Amino acid sequence: MRIRNKPWAMDYLKDNGHIVDTEMTYKNKVKNFFDTDQPLHIEVGTGMGTFITKLAADNPNINYLGIELDKNVIIRVVEKIIELDLKNIRLALLDANFISDYLNDGEVSRIYLNFSDPWPKTRHARRRLTYHTFLKQYHHLLDEDGSLQFKTDNRGLFEYSLQSMNEYGMKFEDIRLDLHDDEPEDNIRTEYEEKFSRNGSRIYLLKASF
Amino acid sequence: MRIRNKPWAMDYLKDNGHIVDTEMTYKNKVKNFFDTDQPLHIEVGTGMGTFITKLAADNPNINYLGIELDKNVIIRVVEKIIELDLKNIRLALLDANFISDYLNDGEVSRIYLNFSDPWPKTRHARRRLTYHTFLKQYHHLLDEDGSLQFKTDNRGLFEYSLQSMNEYGMKFEDIRLDLHDDEPEDNIRTEYEEKFSRNGSRIYLLKASF
Ligand SMILES: C[S@@+](CC[C@H](N)C(=O)[O-])C[C@H]1O[C@@H](n2cnc3c(N)ncnc32)[C@H](O)[C@@H]1O
Ligand SMILES: C[S@@+](CC[C@H](N)C(=O)[O-])C[C@H]1O[C@@H](n2cnc3c(N)ncnc32)[C@H](O)[C@@H]1O
Repeated sequence: MRIRNKPWAMDYLKDNGHIVDTEMTYKNKVKNFFDTDQPLHIEVGTGMGTFITKLAADNPNINYLGIELDKNVIIRVVEKIIELDLKNIRLALLDANFISDYLNDGEVSRIYLNFSDPWPKTRHARRRLTYHTFLKQYHHLLDEDGSLQFKTDNRGLFEYSLQSMNEYGMKFEDIRLDLHDDEPEDNIRTEYEEKFSRNGSRIYLLKASF
Repeated sequence: MRIRNKPWAMDYLKDNGHIVDTEMTYKNKVKNFFDTDQPLHIEVGTGMGTFITKLAADNPNINYLGIELDKNVIIRVVEKIIELDLKNIRLALLDANFISDYLNDGEVSRIYLNFSDPWPKTRHARRRLTYHTFLKQYHHLLDEDGSLQFKTDNRGLFEYSLQSMNEYGMKFEDIRLDLHDDEPEDNIRTEYEEKFSRNGSRIYLLKASF
């Protein structure tokens, strides 16, 4: 997904401040974003948002927050939200490193990570969204029954993440080493998932909780 | 591996009582089996023993015990041991369900499980060699620094085993979701590993400790 720089991106996002937060105004922003007080699920690194907008359309009694750091990419999610006139999904232009400055402890009941950047070099391990410093943030954000769902096509990242989450003491609830072989009916494919699956890559899934 | 019944199997094994224990005489047998008192590594379900005899030949300062319940199969391991004149590998004709009656707590420093029968039906889960009742036995048998190494081509069994070992609280030390892609130099292929790899199956590996 190579997205061209859009010089008008920030203006467009600011014009849609009721859908996407670009101010990083931290804490308690999220509550005011939604009409209804209901469980909050988040996706970190939404990309163009196929996955989270579909989820939001299917589940009106859940609030969704998409977190994405690339302004040129997040525009596409804003467009989808407007097009589908969805009230239960909002966005934050935010680097996940600062996620726990942005959200309150226990505020989230589910976290989705889809096809996160693999950062294959060992010296970049700490940028992987399943590095222990991220897990620690997710741990605080999730409520008692909360869980994390992670999908990727990247074998190295999946191997790493199994090890990292095991080491952190997370409990594995579901593991699929070839998700599209006997694909669950409720699986929602992301943009990357569709693309990699077409290339014949295996898709991995892990559901885990703290 | 469909092995024909050999009516002479038990006689052959009993004639080689210095190599293979068919008496299930339990506890302390193992020590007397070996000339030298050195670390003990075991393989559960040796099959024809390609893996463990190679390991034994390569590592004279480790004692190996192969556990296998099929008398028609274990014969082939006895033959290999005689042929290679190995003193540091012995066998027990034993069902792994009784492994902790046979060996002493803390007596083992490594356990290998290779291509264990998958038992795919949920109602047979307790027969899988990574079911929690087996893990509990391995836990007691292994010494403080001991570890378990598990290889399989069976996706379902591997998914299950990751979950079972995570649930038991084991620590993952190495995970490979495609062992033969960039195969480690010290990997020793088993009979099944060779066969399944030729069929294009992926080979999975997990090293874990308690
Ligand atoms: C490989 S894409 C996957 C997009 C989408 N989830 C999918 O499955 O199709 C990863 C996305 O995560 C975003 N991203 C990477 N690191 C991030 C971070 N630290 N915080 C927020 N988003 C991040 C990238 O900008 C990119 O859009
Ligand atoms: C699929 S074969 C694999 C053989 C060999 N490890 C390999 O990788 O080529 C599984 C072996 O485990 C043995 N086995 C199965 N259950 C066992 C048990 N409960 N105790 C001991 N051996 C067992 C079977 O008899 C068979 O020889």
